[in-house]
Amino acid sequence: MLGRGVWSSLRQGLSRGLSRKVGGWASGEGRKMDIAGIYPPVTTPFTATAEVDYGKLEENLHKLGAFPFRGFVVQGSNGEFPFLTSIERLEVVSRVRQAMPKDKLLLAGSGCESTQATVEMTVSMAQVGADAALVVTPCFYRGRMSSAALIHHYTKVADLSPIPVVLYSVPANTGLDLPVDAVVTLSQHPNIVGIKDSGGDVTRMGLIVHKTGRQDFQVLAGSAGFLLASYAVGAVGGVCALANVLGAQVCQLERLCLTGQWEDAQKLQHRLIEPNTAVTRRFGIPGLKKTMDWFGYYGGPCRAPLQELSPTDEEVLRMDFTSNGWL
Amino acid sequence: MLGRGVWSSLRQGLSRGLSRKVGGWASGEGRKMDIAGIYPPVTTPFTATAEVDYGKLEENLHKLGAFPFRGFVVQGSNGEFPFLTSIERLEVVSRVRQAMPKDKLLLAGSGCESTQATVEMTVSMAQVGADAALVVTPCFYRGRMSSAALIHHYTKVADLSPIPVVLYSVPANTGLDLPVDAVVTLSQHPNIVGIKDSGGDVTRMGLIVHKTGRQDFQVLAGSAGFLLASYAVGAVGGVCALANVLGAQVCQLERLCLTGQWEDAQKLQHRLIEPNTAVTRRFGIPGLKKTMDWFGYYGGPCRAPLQELSPTDEEVLRMDFTSNGWL
Amino acid sequence: MLGRGVWSSLRQGLSRGLSRKVGGWASGEGRKMDIAGIYPPVTTPFTATAEVDYGKLEENLHKLGAFPFRGFVVQGSNGEFPFLTSIERLEVVSRVRQAMPKDKLLLAGSGCESTQATVEMTVSMAQVGADAALVVTPCFYRGRMSSAALIHHYTKVADLSPIPVVLYSVPANTGLDLPVDAVVTLSQHPNIVGIKDSGGDVTRMGLIVHKTGRQDFQVLAGSAGFLLASYAVGAVGGVCALANVLGAQVCQLERLCLTGQWEDAQKLQHRLIEPNTAVTRRFGIPGLKKTMDWFGYYGGPCRAPLQELSPTDEEVLRMDFTSNGWL
Amino acid sequence: MLGRGVWSSLRQGLSRGLSRKVGGWASGEGRKMDIAGIYPPVTTPFTATAEVDYGKLEENLHKLGAFPFRGFVVQGSNGEFPFLTSIERLEVVSRVRQAMPKDKLLLAGSGCESTQATVEMTVSMAQVGADAALVVTPCFYRGRMSSAALIHHYTKVADLSPIPVVLYSVPANTGLDLPVDAVVTLSQHPNIVGIKDSGGDVTRMGLIVHKTGRQDFQVLAGSAGFLLASYAVGAVGGVCALANVLGAQVCQLERLCLTGQWEDAQKLQHRLIEPNTAVTRRFGIPGLKKTMDWFGYYGGPCRAPLQELSPTDEEVLRMDFTSNGWL
Repeated sequence: MLGRGVWSSLRQGLSRGLSRKVGGWASGEGRKMDIAGIYPPVTTPFTATAEVDYGKLEENLHKLGAFPFRGFVVQGSNGEFPFLTSIERLEVVSRVRQAMPKDKLLLAGSGCESTQATVEMTVSMAQVGADAALVVTPCFYRGRMSSAALIHHYTKVADLSPIPVVLYSVPANTGLDLPVDAVVTLSQHPNIVGIKDSGGDVTRMGLIVHKTGRQDFQVLAGSAGFLLASYAVGAVGGVCALANVLGAQVCQLERLCLTGQWEDAQKLQHRLIEPNTAVTRRFGIPGLKKTMDWFGYYGGPCRAPLQELSPTDEEVLRMDFTSNGWL
Repeated sequence: MLGRGVWSSLRQGLSRGLSRKVGGWASGEGRKMDIAGIYPPVTTPFTATAEVDYGKLEENLHKLGAFPFRGFVVQGSNGEFPFLTSIERLEVVSRVRQAMPKDKLLLAGSGCESTQATVEMTVSMAQVGADAALVVTPCFYRGRMSSAALIHHYTKVADLSPIPVVLYSVPANTGLDLPVDAVVTLSQHPNIVGIKDSGGDVTRMGLIVHKTGRQDFQVLAGSAGFLLASYAVGAVGGVCALANVLGAQVCQLERLCLTGQWEDAQKLQHRLIEPNTAVTRRFGIPGLKKTMDWFGYYGGPCRAPLQELSPTDEEVLRMDFTSNGWL
Repeated sequence: MLGRGVWSSLRQGLSRGLSRKVGGWASGEGRKMDIAGIYPPVTTPFTATAEVDYGKLEENLHKLGAFPFRGFVVQGSNGEFPFLTSIERLEVVSRVRQAMPKDKLLLAGSGCESTQATVEMTVSMAQVGADAALVVTPCFYRGRMSSAALIHHYTKVADLSPIPVVLYSVPANTGLDLPVDAVVTLSQHPNIVGIKDSGGDVTRMGLIVHKTGRQDFQVLAGSAGFLLASYAVGAVGGVCALANVLGAQVCQLERLCLTGQWEDAQKLQHRLIEPNTAVTRRFGIPGLKKTMDWFGYYGGPCRAPLQELSPTDEEVLRMDFTSNGWL
Repeated sequence: MLGRGVWSSLRQGLSRGLSRKVGGWASGEGRKMDIAGIYPPVTTPFTATAEVDYGKLEENLHKLGAFPFRGFVVQGSNGEFPFLTSIERLEVVSRVRQAMPKDKLLLAGSGCESTQATVEMTVSMAQVGADAALVVTPCFYRGRMSSAALIHHYTKVADLSPIPVVLYSVPANTGLDLPVDAVVTLSQHPNIVGIKDSGGDVTRMGLIVHKTGRQDFQVLAGSAGFLLASYAVGAVGGVCALANVLGAQVCQLERLCLTGQWEDAQKLQHRLIEPNTAVTRRFGIPGLKKTMDWFGYYGGPCRAPLQELSPTDEEVLRMDFTSNGWL
């Protein structure tokens, strides 16, 4: 997918990186990377002509750097990664690495449809500075994506990745739930540290926490809409689109949960549900980007075929924020 | 649906009942019936020849009476109500009323497909002693069950019911989620006191709590699998099939949630997820009844077309309890 | 479900009927009842106060009697049977029997949720004059409706039914497809003569025809939208809501298929798709009844919770007929 | 996605190509390319080390060249295109172009998630010899893929494509049905010549034929399981995975349909349903490739994460062919 030159330089870097990093996860001291905390899945800004706007990306990151996030997810579903070339994917991660505070984690989405491409992209992500790889389930052949196939896929990726792997289940996009039995099996891999679960089924999330209890395996909620409930059943953080616009509030919700202030947490959670649904399921990335424009970030256009919101939709989106006191 | 004789006696009773009970909810003092707490949805025991075994029903209730339940749900989905004649439905409720402790609540399932039949059944349920009616969404014509249709249905039922009405959304059975906007509208009805939500979507449940905050409207979780998370987002109790066999544990989970002992609650919740799934989604009522046999209750056979578990299924069911330390 | 008096008279009649009719299907001559042809699933007319309007029912039947239908389906999904009491269900069938031409077949919907109730209703339907019973899949506990459970259910019903049984799969209402392997097994029962399949999956229909080829088993399309395609894969007729308003045209389509005039059949089929969708999936029974009013029949209101069409919907409905040249 | 060198040579070629080909569809003579007929969607052979095996690809094509196919689809879903790099995608098409008979059509899958990438891939496909582009619906953001978004996407692609565009709707893979209203709108574009519809809903297919009747727009069935029914409602051909192994039979079915021998067509269709389901929905590409091995072609392994069939599955697969007399 990349020009040969890029690949060969990546590969040289890789051999260095592997010796440094693989040592980390394979050293047998038994502790996996701690990924607890809140992450905004950063959007990819585009110019009016649909080029990646790296300057705006950096501006957004500087603003987001003000909040007590644990780190950033780059090229989760909100990053429009299926619309980026491989080179753009790597360049975006590279720029984020440089723009973001040194002490925060960078989780880079590296999932592709084939196992081989996912391995290559994961290795490349490590090379350009990712601390961990977020690997979405392959999904085009979902009818054949049995537990066995998915276990095989993720094991291969984790075996060859120089950085820890975070599983990523997002059925709204993939039409596929990574089965609990597959998650439990994969949790035993020393280089698989957790899962981002965006399905919103907390019974399932609780079960995953329960069944992986001895594996030092961490569950991140995939959305702010069920963040409180996720903490209640044992999640350790969240990757929340809403944190791109209400970063302080999502971090505040985290703090309330971690300090056991459940009543206040509940009140805050309630006010975040509608805005969260608006920038995710209801209006998608166009909704999130429009809201970013309102909140002082650069949202801007999406790449086609994603379309801008209609004026009517925009009004509804705004209402979901104003009626909850955020605008 | 009933013989004329039964109906006329019911109707005479009704006029008495209406004067007594309608006064209650219509009196304008503004407080709705408090339904907070845990309820087992009691099963309907059958003899080997598929007759209702009222004796076993009473025995089960006496045993269940030992736990600090708020009350009992009779003819929720676990009661096999679609397999009972109208007369059986009323007789079962009547017997439960007599067998159960006086200070507990009896929530009786009174939903039918037509609005008219639901009204009649609700009125009859009041006559035979129900404290509140649990009204499942009609579902055969689900393609036409818009918010408007459902609001019309429930409003009619609530208008004419001598006892408070609890909405009941159980998509696994009905293929239909009572829409949030319909719930919010219906929460304003003085005779609609809450909802039993069995869908397991806590984002939705949190939103319902949030949007009905001023209506004295109560949300009950429809399953023990997400009970902790439901309390976390503002539910006030649960109708839990699992409480038919692990009554003490479900009540213990309630207590831990209400007293803010979230860590212990989480540990207990985790151990209840697999048993709960086993007696609900995975093995259904045949699984629940089989487990009741193991735990000292009378489970017995289901009515056809529900089938007994296969020996293999039974083994898996048992494992879901033993592996969590309950058997 | 019925008053005792009704049941006892039904049962007396039944013993007579059984001796007469069971002989029919059990006599071993190996030919099953021929059900080939077109059937309108008649609607149940209601008065403004939601009583069954038997006079209008008879008027509709007299008008429908003018077309070369093979017979009538009473209390298919379009008959609002879930909204009728048992007594009404039987009375409606009885009235249709009397009002319809003697030489046509009466297929009566007799499905209930429990096997026992379905047996009783089927027997009663025979008593009031049904030629065959159309038995919808039970569906409330769809998660447990395995092939084994459904085979058991239908076998019991067919064993005890004095009249031939037609299987009925209508996933839009039941959320359940009667599995092909169950259909194949059931096709071997001497008293099961065919299936009404409303799912619209002609690959499945072709497979059923293929796998039941030796069983004298007949497939009826459950809708006019795929009638031509169904004939092409081996169906022998159809139960078509649209035949309530475009009876001549649906019969014409049958004739074109049976005589191999596929090009004309195709042209006619094309013009029936949108009107058919309008009176089924899109606007349901309210749409069908509204259209009946336009075409000189009595449509009238539905029972609640089904709602009348909005003026906007009504306009769209009309357009689906006018744009295809039918109004 | 491609190395710069490849792109620049493609672009040079492109400018030549555009002047030659765009003229074709824009010339205003009003006839769209005729695509009627049967196409096998060719698989991509891999070596044991998962490299594309171009030699085996050519061998397969030479064997397939013996049948009266209208042409070949390269990189439909069966071509594992999501597992190929852009360079591999183009190389495969280029090789097929050289290996296949000159008088047959080459339809090349060129769909990507973004509109821009799809345009570029389509242009490149034209450069390497495709006669038409088969463009699958983008699907990762399916929640936002409204009719408007899809119309915009396809219009852009068709505007800029030097070769005719065939729409491609395959909900089993994409979770998305290209809406009928979008198809109707797009059928008016002079460079959009038809649709490959793999959903199997013949009511929908008939409606598309009906509503695009004046647009010289052609419908291809996306599977052999409903090929006869598709012809019956007006399709002009099919893209059939099964034609990779039962090429003669699928062409025979076409001939029977075109010559109006519906009874024989029906018998043949019946025997193709189970084999077809086996190599598509049931066992996917691994099933198809295994069967190719049996029928004298090179099937070979799939790229991961697709897994080989288990011995049990293989037996079932074989039975689906033997029981219908094909093995």
